[in-house]
Amino acid sequence: MSTNVARTSDGWWVVGGEAATPVATSATSTAELLADRDAVAAAAASSKGAVPVADLQLLSPVTTPARVVAQMVNYRSHAHDSGFDPDSVPPTFFRKASTSVTGPTGDIRRPDHVRFLDYEVELGLVMGAALPLGTEVSEDDLHEYVAGLVVTNDVSAREIQLTRTQFYESKSYPSFTPTGPYLTLVDRDELRRLSSLRLRLSVNGEVRQDSSVAEMIVRPARALTLLARFQQLAPGDLLLTGTPGGTALKAPPMIVEKIGALLPPKVKWKVFFDKQESNPRYLRDGDVVSARIATPDGAIDLGSQHNQVTVAS
Amino acid sequence: MSTNVARTSDGWWVVGGEAATPVATSATSTAELLADRDAVAAAAASSKGAVPVADLQLLSPVTTPARVVAQMVNYRSHAHDSGFDPDSVPPTFFRKASTSVTGPTGDIRRPDHVRFLDYEVELGLVMGAALPLGTEVSEDDLHEYVAGLVVTNDVSAREIQLTRTQFYESKSYPSFTPTGPYLTLVDRDELRRLSSLRLRLSVNGEVRQDSSVAEMIVRPARALTLLARFQQLAPGDLLLTGTPGGTALKAPPMIVEKIGALLPPKVKWKVFFDKQESNPRYLRDGDVVSARIATPDGAIDLGSQHNQVTVAS
Repeated sequence: MSTNVARTSDGWWVVGGEAATPVATSATSTAELLADRDAVAAAAASSKGAVPVADLQLLSPVTTPARVVAQMVNYRSHAHDSGFDPDSVPPTFFRKASTSVTGPTGDIRRPDHVRFLDYEVELGLVMGAALPLGTEVSEDDLHEYVAGLVVTNDVSAREIQLTRTQFYESKSYPSFTPTGPYLTLVDRDELRRLSSLRLRLSVNGEVRQDSSVAEMIVRPARALTLLARFQQLAPGDLLLTGTPGGTALKAPPMIVEKIGALLPPKVKWKVFFDKQESNPRYLRDGDVVSARIATPDGAIDLGSQHNQVTVAS
Repeated sequence: MSTNVARTSDGWWVVGGEAATPVATSATSTAELLADRDAVAAAAASSKGAVPVADLQLLSPVTTPARVVAQMVNYRSHAHDSGFDPDSVPPTFFRKASTSVTGPTGDIRRPDHVRFLDYEVELGLVMGAALPLGTEVSEDDLHEYVAGLVVTNDVSAREIQLTRTQFYESKSYPSFTPTGPYLTLVDRDELRRLSSLRLRLSVNGEVRQDSSVAEMIVRPARALTLLARFQQLAPGDLLLTGTPGGTALKAPPMIVEKIGALLPPKVKWKVFFDKQESNPRYLRDGDVVSARIATPDGAIDLGSQHNQVTVAS
């Protein structure tokens, strides 16, 4: 059975139902916590010192610094949104600065120069073992590398992302990766059920994204194999596996390239973003973004995160 | 006066002329070496235990893991090569995996699936202090953050880079960042002379790149300020500052976008790379790539690297 682990400034907790039981561990990083699985198991089997989880101020269960790697276009519905052919988009990775990680209730702080702020709910994989260069991971041994799952939001500054072409800056500003509430520790059988996970994201209660991991294009075992051609990972590192359709950005970059191909880039993007001004789906200051990932039967439930948009000071 | 520091499996050396003097330090990482500047100064003032530098098997003076960040299109001549307007290309960063770092004589190992292997000589900045988020760096206090300079080659698998759009994988394969020979420690006055550095790269003795830092678009102080909006750095981290014109890739990606805008991406890139087959400038197995960076008067001389292209096993 999956185990939900939470983190506060006091330490680590196992969460079951409404109760959180403290983990007797000296771990300060996610990697150290993952190396102390006996302590987690002991807390899961006990209710000693349990408190209502609602009383806790949860932090990201993924500590930083850590490598944060993300997959570009990896859901069929998002490929359609973005103007890519889901059957021929090449598997692509990019990096996010880990200072972008914030907790499940932290503010999403919009830098003052960003006007087109977008959301992307994503299933995060947390590494439980080293992934050396050249590793080939199969569906059968995925559990030897992936220790847990976590809800993430790959917040994106669209005007930075599209004009720079490289996604790194646009998705790396502080607080641009809300992570949690729980690190859901999973075993081999649970990892086989990944396809039944449902991802949902809403803004001020209005559902924007609602899809299933079943429509993922490059699945975790193959993604890790492809990544290991050039990037090693360590325990506690985080892989974001792409977002389904429903983001605010809808006008497909591919279409923009086509209609804008004869314009200088500056003009092309000015035309594009002038049009996006009337798109009401971009995040505004005060908006609350809620994201949740779980199986329909609740057997694997990564919990919900709720993050409010504010202006960065 | 600048000080050239080299690294071997035995430790660290100060190199002057043909002689290398061992540094009495327990440092194993570049960050630790930079924290032990007294030991470096002592070796620079002595010739105790000196050996001919030619007898040493030099490793990268930048140890890993470290953050390796790179600037996209940052020389006017490379902007022209790539079809960008140098006056309006937005400052853009991307990440390289630090396992791509190899020494100044290490093989450049071409992955079997890569056919369009290209070179990019770049001035590398090695951080000597932490760069916290939000730091504003001026030309006057650049020396407080940048401890040294190093020759780097941002080796690139062009068919991966252009088809994926994100540069991360194409520039991160093992051995894709030859670094060294020397970490050239510089002071405030030397950092003011950066513009007089000349970068040269040749393949089998044929000069391919020969430019000056004077044509850099976003200079180091501004680059670090822009980077610090979203990425912190630590001592020993490495920033690659872009390459001048002369790479094998000449057909501008922007032009490809224009002529190929009405074609599906797969067809567009097939047409493009079929044409590149007849471009003799891409690296072939056995080629030797030599790169050097120095001021014309030799007062700042980062040395030369020589790396042979082989097939990765």
